Amino acid sequence: MTPSRTTSGGAPGPAGQPAWELLLPAAGAPARRRGRALQEALREAVRSGRLAAGTRLPSTRELAADLGVSRGLVTEAYEQLTAEGYLRGERGAGTWVGGAVRVGGVAGSGVTATGGVAGAGGAGGAGGAVGAPDVRVDFRPGVPDLSLFPRSAWAAAQRSVLARLPHRALGYPDPRGLPELRGALAGMLARRRGVVADPERLVVCSGVAQASTLLGFVLRARGLRAVGVEDPGSPEHGRLFASTGMETVWLPLDGEGLRPGPLTASGVRAVVVTPSHQFPSGIGWSAERRAALLDWARAVDGYVLEDDYDGDFRYDRAPVGALQGLDPERVVYAGSVSKSLAPGLRLGWALVPEALLDEVVERKRTMDLGNPVLDQAVLAEFVARGGYDRQLRRCQRAYRERRDALLAALAEHLPGTGVSGIAAGLHVIARVPARFGPPERFLARAAEAGVALRPLEEYGTARPADGDVRLVIGYAHLPPSAIAEGIGLLAGAVGELTSQNR
Amino acid sequence: MTPSRTTSGGAPGPAGQPAWELLLPAAGAPARRRGRALQEALREAVRSGRLAAGTRLPSTRELAADLGVSRGLVTEAYEQLTAEGYLRGERGAGTWVGGAVRVGGVAGSGVTATGGVAGAGGAGGAGGAVGAPDVRVDFRPGVPDLSLFPRSAWAAAQRSVLARLPHRALGYPDPRGLPELRGALAGMLARRRGVVADPERLVVCSGVAQASTLLGFVLRARGLRAVGVEDPGSPEHGRLFASTGMETVWLPLDGEGLRPGPLTASGVRAVVVTPSHQFPSGIGWSAERRAALLDWARAVDGYVLEDDYDGDFRYDRAPVGALQGLDPERVVYAGSVSKSLAPGLRLGWALVPEALLDEVVERKRTMDLGNPVLDQAVLAEFVARGGYDRQLRRCQRAYRERRDALLAALAEHLPGTGVSGIAAGLHVIARVPARFGPPERFLARAAEAGVALRPLEEYGTARPADGDVRLVIGYAHLPPSAIAEGIGLLAGAVGELTSQNR
Repeated sequence: MTPSRTTSGGAPGPAGQPAWELLLPAAGAPARRRGRALQEALREAVRSGRLAAGTRLPSTRELAADLGVSRGLVTEAYEQLTAEGYLRGERGAGTWVGGAVRVGGVAGSGVTATGGVAGAGGAGGAGGAVGAPDVRVDFRPGVPDLSLFPRSAWAAAQRSVLARLPHRALGYPDPRGLPELRGALAGMLARRRGVVADPERLVVCSGVAQASTLLGFVLRARGLRAVGVEDPGSPEHGRLFASTGMETVWLPLDGEGLRPGPLTASGVRAVVVTPSHQFPSGIGWSAERRAALLDWARAVDGYVLEDDYDGDFRYDRAPVGALQGLDPERVVYAGSVSKSLAPGLRLGWALVPEALLDEVVERKRTMDLGNPVLDQAVLAEFVARGGYDRQLRRCQRAYRERRDALLAALAEHLPGTGVSGIAAGLHVIARVPARFGPPERFLARAAEAGVALRPLEEYGTARPADGDVRLVIGYAHLPPSAIAEGIGLLAGAVGELTSQNR
Repeated sequence: MTPSRTTSGGAPGPAGQPAWELLLPAAGAPARRRGRALQEALREAVRSGRLAAGTRLPSTRELAADLGVSRGLVTEAYEQLTAEGYLRGERGAGTWVGGAVRVGGVAGSGVTATGGVAGAGGAGGAGGAVGAPDVRVDFRPGVPDLSLFPRSAWAAAQRSVLARLPHRALGYPDPRGLPELRGALAGMLARRRGVVADPERLVVCSGVAQASTLLGFVLRARGLRAVGVEDPGSPEHGRLFASTGMETVWLPLDGEGLRPGPLTASGVRAVVVTPSHQFPSGIGWSAERRAALLDWARAVDGYVLEDDYDGDFRYDRAPVGALQGLDPERVVYAGSVSKSLAPGLRLGWALVPEALLDEVVERKRTMDLGNPVLDQAVLAEFVARGGYDRQLRRCQRAYRERRDALLAALAEHLPGTGVSGIAAGLHVIARVPARFGPPERFLARAAEAGVALRPLEEYGTARPADGDVRLVIGYAHLPPSAIAEGIGLLAGAVGELTSQNR
């Protein structure tokens, strides 16, 4: 794609240039809010088509001068939207509107999906991680810190709901979900995750697992027989789709996302992906791969399930907006409160393309007639009153601290260990050098020492023969002291092994 | 079957006679409790095989003397267990143990089902019944009185649960349900409904609708292609099973239950039934038909889904025990709190034959990973502290009063109207004489007058040509004054019609 037009500030002119000042947030607002407002305004302008693909944007210096804001704020907005795939840029060549976005376009019939299931590691795994007997420190991923659940705020919301809910709201629910919750979630998700969140397209469900099953049944009924999953990825995605009669095709990942060649060659028309923070590799998908995935979905009339299992937890910068924002007609966006509040609540959401909506809702109806009403009303109140944002900030602080503690402990006790992936989420990929190996004995010694670990090999087909030990380490549920203790225990156990037996 | 042995009181003798005094409830207990204890002891003795099929029971006079209780109490116990199919009796020939019971027998692979879905009339219908515009009085069945929901008791249980639940309970749930709830429900159901309720066989689900879908998927995966449903019956059963790929076969009912001939001829190996209070006809299945259904299930290696949608509400006598108690390996028993508390809670249960259990649980897992934990803990506490029993008594009083009000209003305003079915549940079948018809105009006039009605024809294939108007009238959600007003309105509207246009 080549830049086709250059635009600058001013009212819409005969050439259709956007009025940049319309993008300008209220002058009195603090810089942080102005920055966010600028990003949202740009995103919306791209989505709506007011900024067409190929439109060249003014330089950051020009736009900052036009808008009377700092250049850094514009630069940040351009970078953010470039990461999300709305804009494209090359050093020295400027910035222009990318071709990935497709909103309000042709209603189609393909699917791409991403996942909150990804981080769950399966209910069995998660359940086992808590109470297994000989485990002193459990680094298996999948469970947030359940002690962070805001009990008193939740109790207050419960009281309030039971006091105010009209009697008729206790009847059979709308299978799509309580209107007040769909509205509250749509607003929250648009603001936090950059999705196109029409409450009419939002289906309340019991979590990403159910979103996967719902979608699987709908696609299977349409004649699809297979779904592509990321390799490495969560085996749970495949299990869930298998229960709907869909086969699973592993699709190889590299450092940027799904490799386009194997994706195209696979012949699937539906994929499940975790682009914001890939599970388990921890990468964030590049803007190019996001665009390529959507191009593929349109070309094959396919769909993407976006499992946004921990899209809220990014520690080094603002989270990258969800893929769904780029093409809500090709992406089913699914998320839940399982990582932010508690998996036991079984509350989540799916944003569903128009073309699939009726079928998904009817499936939801026959599965359970809809989610429990009181829970939905409580979450709606919690979100509307700011409790959900507060909770996310609280978790974010705690998990960032734990991630730092893990990295420090690895550096101290298992020097040379590489940690890959973006600074986000509830787990890291650690690659322990071969001198602490070999992997089988490493894992056996860890287990004997009471340290529960999950090797990366459990999440895909790759079996590297370099002797390094690749681990998926969950840290969110452990206080920093337990993290340090666990890595110390681990090093003690495997350190002895290497000194004696290499 | 012929009576083969006669037993009487005393310790187990060489001939294996039961020790009747072991059946004797604590001497100090009030008569009502002793009666119930005697029934439970007899039921258990039959199930366990201690009282084998064909065993002849002592006469009521003998047993009453042996046990030192009133003869009426023994007579009542015999009658109750005969109605449930445990015992058989003929006037003058005595009472013996029936052949219908099969507990701890061969694990098989057939299905018979009964329903809480039955009374729901579909989520759409129920939802529409509440807020439709021009409706002044809504007699469509399916919704209980939502104002009876015990808000303050529920709020107290919520508070208590949030205060005491350990953190780890907030993680991914056991897909079978919270152990404390399964225990509480098993006890309650064994006591109230006479089921064989092993907590290990109880799966918490979101209601009878989900129980139907779970079972449908499991049976479909086993190769079954069709499920039999009662005619008349709830169309919702067929819709739910259809979503799992199962076809529906209507099976004709008469005044006693499913007719055995058409059932056998149908070739199905799974049926959904409502034996305690058939929906919509209102009959209670006879003991013979209950036994015949179970004989059929064993013969075809089939299963029964027992939808016990309002088994708790019987106004003239103790509710007849559930079918499942007679053969827990052939019957999936399903119920919910939808009629007793509120449909919006989406909480129910299924008692599942051993042979199907693992498959049902795995289906439940892939559908939603399990029900919300807090809701389950709240219901467990509510049941364990007696709140559920209190609630049932409260509903029972209210609904009995409303049924009486309806019958009185029909007698006054639409004389000659016949009301059929047992004194139970949340609806009646009313047959309005042809002189108020014809049915099309009757229903049109009713709608014009703002009286919402549902004709029996919507629930099955029968289309009698006698000109009578057959209605399924729901009364539970209406206060007696509204019932009287509604029937008055109705009579005014159709009365004019008949006087002018017959």
